[in-house]
Amino acid sequence: MENFTVYNPTKVVFGKNVITQLSRTVLKFGKNVLLVYGMGSIKANGIYKEVIAQLHKAGVKVVEYSGIKPNPVVDDVKLATDLGIEKGIDVIVAVGGGSVIDSAKIISLCIPGNLDGWDVMKVNVKPVSAIPLITVLTLAATGTEMNCYAVLQNNKTREKTGFGNDLAFPKYSFLDPRYTFTVPAEQTAYGVVDMIAHALEGFFGYGECTLTDHFTGSIIKQAMHYGRLALKEPCNYNYRANLMWAATCALNGMTSYGRTSADWGPHDIGHILSFLYDTPHGASLSIAYPAWLKLQRTRIPHRIKDLGKLLFSTNSINQTIGKFEEYFSQINCPVRLSEIGIGSDKKNEILSLMIRNKVNGFVHKLNKADYEKILNLMK
Amino acid sequence: MENFTVYNPTKVVFGKNVITQLSRTVLKFGKNVLLVYGMGSIKANGIYKEVIAQLHKAGVKVVEYSGIKPNPVVDDVKLATDLGIEKGIDVIVAVGGGSVIDSAKIISLCIPGNLDGWDVMKVNVKPVSAIPLITVLTLAATGTEMNCYAVLQNNKTREKTGFGNDLAFPKYSFLDPRYTFTVPAEQTAYGVVDMIAHALEGFFGYGECTLTDHFTGSIIKQAMHYGRLALKEPCNYNYRANLMWAATCALNGMTSYGRTSADWGPHDIGHILSFLYDTPHGASLSIAYPAWLKLQRTRIPHRIKDLGKLLFSTNSINQTIGKFEEYFSQINCPVRLSEIGIGSDKKNEILSLMIRNKVNGFVHKLNKADYEKILNLMK
Repeated sequence: MENFTVYNPTKVVFGKNVITQLSRTVLKFGKNVLLVYGMGSIKANGIYKEVIAQLHKAGVKVVEYSGIKPNPVVDDVKLATDLGIEKGIDVIVAVGGGSVIDSAKIISLCIPGNLDGWDVMKVNVKPVSAIPLITVLTLAATGTEMNCYAVLQNNKTREKTGFGNDLAFPKYSFLDPRYTFTVPAEQTAYGVVDMIAHALEGFFGYGECTLTDHFTGSIIKQAMHYGRLALKEPCNYNYRANLMWAATCALNGMTSYGRTSADWGPHDIGHILSFLYDTPHGASLSIAYPAWLKLQRTRIPHRIKDLGKLLFSTNSINQTIGKFEEYFSQINCPVRLSEIGIGSDKKNEILSLMIRNKVNGFVHKLNKADYEKILNLMK
Repeated sequence: MENFTVYNPTKVVFGKNVITQLSRTVLKFGKNVLLVYGMGSIKANGIYKEVIAQLHKAGVKVVEYSGIKPNPVVDDVKLATDLGIEKGIDVIVAVGGGSVIDSAKIISLCIPGNLDGWDVMKVNVKPVSAIPLITVLTLAATGTEMNCYAVLQNNKTREKTGFGNDLAFPKYSFLDPRYTFTVPAEQTAYGVVDMIAHALEGFFGYGECTLTDHFTGSIIKQAMHYGRLALKEPCNYNYRANLMWAATCALNGMTSYGRTSADWGPHDIGHILSFLYDTPHGASLSIAYPAWLKLQRTRIPHRIKDLGKLLFSTNSINQTIGKFEEYFSQINCPVRLSEIGIGSDKKNEILSLMIRNKVNGFVHKLNKADYEKILNLMK
């Protein structure tokens, strides 16, 4: 067990109709609200209406910034920051999934000092305070609702990168599983892959902790089980609730207790695909993770065996990796580049962006020869 | 899955030598420190010296309140509150186990408004702020280091009761497993029972959540496994670390996710024994829990079966209860009143205090007839 620190001050309010607590929660922080959301699905499914009703009830002024993309870009952060400063906003309400909430986190850090979003992401500047952030989650996937992380891409520098800062914890996150009933099957499945990948990144981090291994195993089993069920019955509250909570637990800290760091190598690989081909994050991971595991077969055989025992009661490394591929395929997620129309002709393009982005894990370091191997394993 | 809220802002700093971070941590909160501790074991084992060195390094003024009893009483809270107000203290450092930290929590709530500790405990007054509390843990048991609960007794009103308030979360808790190397076998074992009991209280709470069941099962197995090992090799870092972290996880919220409430019936029964006979908390629980489970055999058979499957791969209720009794006995904890010299002649004394204290669970309610049954099952 390594030395470690646990800190997570986000208040999560989980369950049916928790949105009714939004109006009084907003008023704890201010009267001028920046409402951040995505491409408009919340207008179609009625969530927008419920949020607006709460904000009206609170009697606050609301300014909206919408259009956050599924693979979010730092340009939106810049525009929303300018808007927030101009309107003197004092609290942000982010309604959406990972892309919206991640963007809102960086916006919340940029507004107080009029900072540049990419400077914040690259830790070129250090934010000293943050506008309070309240989130309303609409997708079970990234776990951003209960952590201090964000991922954004920069089209100018051709980078997609992750970031973490204690100031970026949401103050409150409202999680109503019913808000995920209308999530299409494809996005539901990508969310399942994402939560599994988060738990795995923790598992392959540095430091051994049996209790954390068991937490992690439970979360992955839960995700696989309820993921399958929620795809069959999208409006089943119990299935969606269990899935939503598994996503939160997969990246709220508990899969890294007793370790100094998670790995994040497969995520880094996935980000390249998302940047180049707008591949959905979950789909990039269902391709990248099996390939990464195959690369690690001879390097960390004991850990992959531990994982196999924990999840599938097997000692076989190949069987363990096969089980993930099988599951991802069963829920209609790609496990090879060819399945999403990326052929061998893209090899150099991918390789050069991997080099530019310094694709790596924190623990199991990847070099350029590894990039080639992983590309072969993904094709 | 029930609606639930998760909130836990305590920063836990876990591992070897984490005490070296105490000096700069104290300075975040103030220059006038109230140092709270117990009966002096920290002077014998060197922990006191390390804490004082950190406080000297920080250059803060230190006033001490020591002598907190293993079954802590509200009179000490009163005296420490008076001292804290007189000295204008602005941060509390509590060094000890549950009794010390629980007392320090109530002291931290009493000082700002010069409140009465028992009024706070009984929720007759509502504290509006708290002196920041930093804890240095010396015992793996109660989980108080990462929650907002406290238990105290009042010798005048003849009550022992629990309390919870968001203001009572420690700001920082320093957990060095080496600080538990010198904990005697008896107290180590009582700590193991306590953490198991906390996980069980969550398990028998209101609301079903499979993921939480699995977290809970993992924590109990971890406690049983490393408890046994730590008793054999008290100075093994790995054993003590795993045990310490299991204790924290057993009552930091994660055994109650997806539920509205834990039960706390067996704890309430145990408090009566501690009040009357100064029975150590863990010993009171190793007697009370098996009896309570036997009472519930026909009332909640499905939950006890769930527990048996989770922990011991058995469908048998009797076998499950037997396994707990067997384990407690193996680690030399009593499972009957007769083992700690409490005979049938004490029946009325115990009964009348159970009635006075309104012994009950939040979920599985107990009536006076149940008290008699439980007494018979404990004798």
